[in-house]
Amino acid sequence: MTYCVAMRVDEGLVFLADTRTNAGVDHVSTFRKMTVFEQPGERVLVLLTAGNLALTQSVAQILAEPTEPDHPTLWNVPNMFEAACLVGKAVREVHKMHAEALHDFSIEFNCSFLLGGQIQGQGVRLFQIYAAGNFIEASTMNPYFQIGEAKYGKPILDRVLTPDMPLDEAAKCALISMDSTLRSNVSVGLPLDLLVYEKDSLRVTKFALIDHDNEYFDMIHTSWGARLRQVFAEIPDPQWTPVSALPPGRSPMRSDPPLAPGHGPYKPVHEPALAQTLAQSQGGQPEPD
Amino acid sequence: MTYCVAMRVDEGLVFLADTRTNAGVDHVSTFRKMTVFEQPGERVLVLLTAGNLALTQSVAQILAEPTEPDHPTLWNVPNMFEAACLVGKAVREVHKMHAEALHDFSIEFNCSFLLGGQIQGQGVRLFQIYAAGNFIEASTMNPYFQIGEAKYGKPILDRVLTPDMPLDEAAKCALISMDSTLRSNVSVGLPLDLLVYEKDSLRVTKFALIDHDNEYFDMIHTSWGARLRQVFAEIPDPQWTPVSALPPGRSPMRSDPPLAPGHGPYKPVHEPALAQTLAQSQGGQPEPD
Repeated sequence: MTYCVAMRVDEGLVFLADTRTNAGVDHVSTFRKMTVFEQPGERVLVLLTAGNLALTQSVAQILAEPTEPDHPTLWNVPNMFEAACLVGKAVREVHKMHAEALHDFSIEFNCSFLLGGQIQGQGVRLFQIYAAGNFIEASTMNPYFQIGEAKYGKPILDRVLTPDMPLDEAAKCALISMDSTLRSNVSVGLPLDLLVYEKDSLRVTKFALIDHDNEYFDMIHTSWGARLRQVFAEIPDPQWTPVSALPPGRSPMRSDPPLAPGHGPYKPVHEPALAQTLAQSQGGQPEPD
Repeated sequence: MTYCVAMRVDEGLVFLADTRTNAGVDHVSTFRKMTVFEQPGERVLVLLTAGNLALTQSVAQILAEPTEPDHPTLWNVPNMFEAACLVGKAVREVHKMHAEALHDFSIEFNCSFLLGGQIQGQGVRLFQIYAAGNFIEASTMNPYFQIGEAKYGKPILDRVLTPDMPLDEAAKCALISMDSTLRSNVSVGLPLDLLVYEKDSLRVTKFALIDHDNEYFDMIHTSWGARLRQVFAEIPDPQWTPVSALPPGRSPMRSDPPLAPGHGPYKPVHEPALAQTLAQSQGGQPEPD
């Protein structure tokens, strides 16, 4: 499996990719899923890939060194939209080469791509390209894309990421999202490729290969979990109140559990039942603290 | 889609299920996925279901009112292990009835179950039963099971849930896990069935149907998100230091980004590059605060 996330915020782009691949749990390897096309002062394009490694490596290769030498590449394509089209075309070319043979082995044509960057004189853009070669672009309404094992790391993105977030804060958000994914899925693993692209810099100024010895990621890993547990402890538990203790006129919001058929009607308990109110306020708002 | 989570802690069991079903986004309905077998003083068994609703309803029906009247049911099965076996048998019976016809319509035989509870004189147990009818049991090493849309809500469980957690705190944990799922997947929806089973009570004392008007869940929804953003803000951002600013002898942990082939070797930038060190400490530990 793989987890890659890319973000487009006002100040630039953040790219983060793990490096674990597996062909079954007894065949785990390390491959980089980030490919950088940097022409300092002219362009920085970053490609992240997920899916079948043989397919994604073929696509990356075609985008850098096409079989026909006069074909466009990500090194010379004139704008980001054309760059996304080119990735789509490369995926279709690889599909033509391999899909049928893979199908004979019941292997799915499974690959997806994130492409972001900037070309001199143009804006910063970020795209997600599907296995069919079609693609979508990130916007202020949806400032990030994920590919691979996306779900564990999505809640934190949905809760905190906004387009006006400073770049390094967005990088922190990506790393926390990755940390949640690493915690819950062993098929995603260190080291990580982190690239933070500062808008209009047209060069790679901030890049780190993050491994077990990276103190910042280790701090994130430790303190995010600890803080989460602390916040969790501070939120009050639900309360359950006996019906008799409710103020008069206060409906206990009681509802019966969904009982199975086959055993006659619900038999009430001898003692007065608890009002199953789950801390509905009894006259006032519950205190979050 | 569906999200159900069940937990076995020292003090008892927690069951939480959403109620949204969909057959495509233009066909969304509300069905309860919890079925309670309560014989006060003798047994409380709770079944949670996910997957194809026609299948899971058939299974629940067979477990309550079998077609052969002398067959065992969850109302009379003598112990929890037999109860889990019975769910497995019911799934296989439904498979025999429907799988072939579903296959003709390219519909997968997709269903899964959580079954937990207690029968008088015995311990509290929790099982997950698969579509094939086989099953596993929760343990202190793995005190919870999820079915349906499990991934968004898994990180918080992995980080905070322990078997010695008090019951109501575990219920809070389940609700936060559900809140993350609701936030990231619209196919999971309110109202929620929450049942908290207190060990040895042998009756349902704590049950709530949680809808938009539930103040406690609303508080969780609001304050968890707000606190998460606050904790996020308190964790320091990564730092990037110019190589020249590093103390002598300190390796900058620099690594080059994974450049695409096809354009000659990496061309260094004119100005002295940043050491892409990502807040590696420069002699001391980084401060988490």
